[in-house]
Amino acid sequence: MTTDAAGTVRVALIGSGRMGAYHGETLSRRVPGARLVAVADPAPGAAERLAGALGADRAYTDPVQVWADPDVDAVVIAAPARFHADLVVAAAGAGKGVFCEKPMAMTLLEADRAIEAARAAGVVLQVGFNRRFAADWTAARALLDAGRLGTPRLLRSVTRDPGGFDPSRVAPDTIFRETLIHDFDTLRFLNPGAEAVEVFATADALVEPGWRDRGLLDTAVVVVRFDNGARAVAEACFEASYGYDVRGEVLGSGGMVTMGDGRRTGMVWSGPEGRAVETVRGDQELFPDAYTAELAAFVGAVRSGTPALVTGADARAALAIALAAAGSVRIGRPVRLDEVPA
Amino acid sequence: MTTDAAGTVRVALIGSGRMGAYHGETLSRRVPGARLVAVADPAPGAAERLAGALGADRAYTDPVQVWADPDVDAVVIAAPARFHADLVVAAAGAGKGVFCEKPMAMTLLEADRAIEAARAAGVVLQVGFNRRFAADWTAARALLDAGRLGTPRLLRSVTRDPGGFDPSRVAPDTIFRETLIHDFDTLRFLNPGAEAVEVFATADALVEPGWRDRGLLDTAVVVVRFDNGARAVAEACFEASYGYDVRGEVLGSGGMVTMGDGRRTGMVWSGPEGRAVETVRGDQELFPDAYTAELAAFVGAVRSGTPALVTGADARAALAIALAAAGSVRIGRPVRLDEVPA
Amino acid sequence: MTTDAAGTVRVALIGSGRMGAYHGETLSRRVPGARLVAVADPAPGAAERLAGALGADRAYTDPVQVWADPDVDAVVIAAPARFHADLVVAAAGAGKGVFCEKPMAMTLLEADRAIEAARAAGVVLQVGFNRRFAADWTAARALLDAGRLGTPRLLRSVTRDPGGFDPSRVAPDTIFRETLIHDFDTLRFLNPGAEAVEVFATADALVEPGWRDRGLLDTAVVVVRFDNGARAVAEACFEASYGYDVRGEVLGSGGMVTMGDGRRTGMVWSGPEGRAVETVRGDQELFPDAYTAELAAFVGAVRSGTPALVTGADARAALAIALAAAGSVRIGRPVRLDEVPA
Amino acid sequence: MTTDAAGTVRVALIGSGRMGAYHGETLSRRVPGARLVAVADPAPGAAERLAGALGADRAYTDPVQVWADPDVDAVVIAAPARFHADLVVAAAGAGKGVFCEKPMAMTLLEADRAIEAARAAGVVLQVGFNRRFAADWTAARALLDAGRLGTPRLLRSVTRDPGGFDPSRVAPDTIFRETLIHDFDTLRFLNPGAEAVEVFATADALVEPGWRDRGLLDTAVVVVRFDNGARAVAEACFEASYGYDVRGEVLGSGGMVTMGDGRRTGMVWSGPEGRAVETVRGDQELFPDAYTAELAAFVGAVRSGTPALVTGADARAALAIALAAAGSVRIGRPVRLDEVPA
Repeated sequence: MTTDAAGTVRVALIGSGRMGAYHGETLSRRVPGARLVAVADPAPGAAERLAGALGADRAYTDPVQVWADPDVDAVVIAAPARFHADLVVAAAGAGKGVFCEKPMAMTLLEADRAIEAARAAGVVLQVGFNRRFAADWTAARALLDAGRLGTPRLLRSVTRDPGGFDPSRVAPDTIFRETLIHDFDTLRFLNPGAEAVEVFATADALVEPGWRDRGLLDTAVVVVRFDNGARAVAEACFEASYGYDVRGEVLGSGGMVTMGDGRRTGMVWSGPEGRAVETVRGDQELFPDAYTAELAAFVGAVRSGTPALVTGADARAALAIALAAAGSVRIGRPVRLDEVPA
Repeated sequence: MTTDAAGTVRVALIGSGRMGAYHGETLSRRVPGARLVAVADPAPGAAERLAGALGADRAYTDPVQVWADPDVDAVVIAAPARFHADLVVAAAGAGKGVFCEKPMAMTLLEADRAIEAARAAGVVLQVGFNRRFAADWTAARALLDAGRLGTPRLLRSVTRDPGGFDPSRVAPDTIFRETLIHDFDTLRFLNPGAEAVEVFATADALVEPGWRDRGLLDTAVVVVRFDNGARAVAEACFEASYGYDVRGEVLGSGGMVTMGDGRRTGMVWSGPEGRAVETVRGDQELFPDAYTAELAAFVGAVRSGTPALVTGADARAALAIALAAAGSVRIGRPVRLDEVPA
Repeated sequence: MTTDAAGTVRVALIGSGRMGAYHGETLSRRVPGARLVAVADPAPGAAERLAGALGADRAYTDPVQVWADPDVDAVVIAAPARFHADLVVAAAGAGKGVFCEKPMAMTLLEADRAIEAARAAGVVLQVGFNRRFAADWTAARALLDAGRLGTPRLLRSVTRDPGGFDPSRVAPDTIFRETLIHDFDTLRFLNPGAEAVEVFATADALVEPGWRDRGLLDTAVVVVRFDNGARAVAEACFEASYGYDVRGEVLGSGGMVTMGDGRRTGMVWSGPEGRAVETVRGDQELFPDAYTAELAAFVGAVRSGTPALVTGADARAALAIALAAAGSVRIGRPVRLDEVPA
Repeated sequence: MTTDAAGTVRVALIGSGRMGAYHGETLSRRVPGARLVAVADPAPGAAERLAGALGADRAYTDPVQVWADPDVDAVVIAAPARFHADLVVAAAGAGKGVFCEKPMAMTLLEADRAIEAARAAGVVLQVGFNRRFAADWTAARALLDAGRLGTPRLLRSVTRDPGGFDPSRVAPDTIFRETLIHDFDTLRFLNPGAEAVEVFATADALVEPGWRDRGLLDTAVVVVRFDNGARAVAEACFEASYGYDVRGEVLGSGGMVTMGDGRRTGMVWSGPEGRAVETVRGDQELFPDAYTAELAAFVGAVRSGTPALVTGADARAALAIALAAAGSVRIGRPVRLDEVPA
């Protein structure tokens, strides 16, 4: 049973933070065929507040209550990253369809456990690589699939946050495991069928140099060699004065495609200081349609029982690159994917 | 009573054609606080089909049934243009909030009747000038309101359809009253506080020259002089090989702003033939957010009793320019707004 | 004899003002096969100064001295506009090849005299419509000639100066005869084979309203109907806060082409205030290559005896549109080209 | 004595191949204050042909003849790269000002010898890093110098040739020493005051995989760590279907700047297939103004005795990065600059 009698997928939200609230709003307002029925969050009052705001019926403080709720068909996991894999395993065990924010796991072992749990339970498992659903990226992939780009040779994926992050919450691997993991997935998405072989990374605390001694890394460049020979560069910085900047580029034997223009609107201002456009300032401003599309795809997969478009295997592959990158920074040389510890 | 007990605005749709269906889908899927409860259309089975597809409870063949339905708070009129004014008058008389597609009326007398009916009934009357809600145009107006553009001097608004129109359905005034009326409203929106004084227009059947003898006009240029001295050009053509093209430009004493870049996505392709972007192919592809925003604004106004953001007076003013333009073509010289017959 | 023994075209410059100095520098530095040998200017010392700076041998105070100089093959006329036609007639009578800045004449009679003089003398006569040599415009015309644009339907040409003009030097017709004449020629260039039939213009003193009573016109919109049905809009303003702005657009049955992006370089700045490019601030910054190309073409025509690429007839046709536009403003209605007085 | 009596710098060209011919044409046509007086090339007839075409007086088959020519003030070296350093040493020894195409040397020892020869002789030595003179790059550097970019954090420089190269002429280090050396210099130019510390490179034969066994490298990615913490990526490919593509990007603490838009003109075509611009197809099409400006700067330095804007030390620093990159590919790990053999 993966829907209610009317064919609506009843979704519970695990986690009511920034992304949880956003996914909850998307589910309740913009995804046809879905209904947000419950919110779970251990923080006192948090689930109640969000459930009330979004019109969800039930508020829980423990995800165990969600697993036990027979009127929940699927869950959207937006809890802190370190709990993701266990939540996926538990939700799958309870027979719920699972959408999990990235990263799905912190280690390859965790990733394997999550994948296996979903497989064993026969539930949908989709991971929150939303860029696969963004218009520019979808269009680029369509050109690839149509053969117009030929074989990819050089790829690039960039993520820059608008800044204002809290250094005390940034661990050494954060930039790889939570930020660049989007780029690693994007590079795989745009080099279809190829897998990473070797990774070199260099990173530093350039935005917050005072935190370098504590292992903060806020700026990173990662070079990935794929088994089809293509080289890719993934690049991130936690502070861009001009806003939230996500871009990509693929040079293939047939041509080049670029993604991400960073413009808020098509309006152009010309004044004494020159010509200017406004820039996008945050992920939720840049990707509203992609966030909606990924949840709509998830809800569709749950309802129809078809496979997810972004799988646990995709999450594992991106994680492996992230771990290789983190390892490369530690040892100062390239790391092969088969060297990454489980 | 302008909502149900839960504060939801219950909307009936009058007309289930292309725009009606689109507004219905927008209302039922993307506008929080609204519920599509009824569809009315005289064509056998049409209302039933659309109501069924969108989950509306009631299907009517006569708008009179809508006026009589106590559980309808507001209506969205998307019937053929020649019925608009009478439908506004009747809906207002029944105490319903009214959203009417453009043009709200075919004559100034009709427009006056519609405005007076809404005023007398104390209901919200909003007209479907959706570009006022489109991101580029909203941003341009914000710059104007902030004083950065200074006083407008030269304005431009362009509408080009992707073609494929049926010449037999195009009357001599269609290009002014149904197409360029958007541009006339846009010019007023971007020259706030000013009103048109004189209009010169020239038009022809260039796409379908074989229909020129029957009075078809498929290409037009209109020059509008405003009472603050600004000159504006509105321009339309019923066929653009490259898609649906809506653009605008304001040159003010402080700078210039342009609107409308016509790009489908931010993806850019570079290949042997050069560099290319995909273009937008239709109004519903270009303006989904604007269509949602205008209905959300309408629903908000109905619920809160606040004035509409686009009024019957706006519809009348744009219509007057359209009628002046049509008159100018007929007599071959500029027409003052005070010459336009009621 | 139209060159020296070595095949170099020896050029004299008539007028050493802003454009004269620029043409002189172009001739002496950037046009192969030409040599600037003389400068003529009645202002005391002016010709000497420019000749010295540019390495020209002779300085004259009277153009008569140029006509008498056997070692001058061709002249570049950059004197005040009211002298142009007489200078063309005299130079042609002396057997010199003639390049004349726009406008070539102030009346159609003058234009006819200049054309006839060049014809009778068998000398090259080229007019300074430099935009025909600018990369964007040349590329657009190439698309037209290749048939990709199909038949032109709607055209646009815009000229906006960066401001700082002296109102006391602006006569009522200046905006048409000296500024928009470029646009009128451009519209003809981009609608090849077609001729203007009727012109409507509206204009005002919006930049300098205090001068309106003296007949100043600093902002104008002109609609031109061509004999192939195409409608064109030419638009000018003497003040654009963001720089020197020359753009064009042609919508044809096959597609659209736009010209003029106003960017100083391809460099893009992204900062807290958004994304910005620098804009071009003057004609000599925007069109250096076009200014060089037009003089190189002239020198080539003089040397080889081939016809000019921009003829006296082109100058006359653009002037006729300018005079029609000026007339339209005076009488407040459209003016047919056959109504323009000689 | 570094000019003739009239202050003109008399230049001899060493090498009459593709770049030699282009520099010769630039010198003789577009650089005021310079005169091309001699061409030297050992190929039978080559020097005569080019000298004749460009109006140079003397043709030599041996550069020794140039050194001995008292009426040569300066030389432009455009011979094959492996002869560059020896030619610089000899020309400097003869007291000629030296402009040398990149790379100035093949080893650091050679570079040191060339630098020392110029220093000892007191002659100007300028190296052909033309991008420093290109408008976009100059404008970017101006923003840097004005402090608007803050401290550079992430840089990028890309070079892609339009293809059609002869694999048999490509040695393993060619992509680093002859192509990417431009990018290495650009990265130093845009990170002023900083020096490279460590380099990681990965490269392959992706365009011509059949030549991989012979050591061909046609595609490369290089990561450079600078002593101010900035990371830079330089990237090259010998085949881009869409033309000649040179771009750059600097993310600093204050903002971002990008360079290189690859457009041939500002003309934009919109047709059934979308919107398109033409792309630049070769270096001489992309950088004519930069090629002129670098030679004008060189000629100016020779005339005035001021230092070159691009020095032998710049050439050495870029070469060191190139050699480190080549070494990194060979050993498969990052290479510190102090590991590069002389």
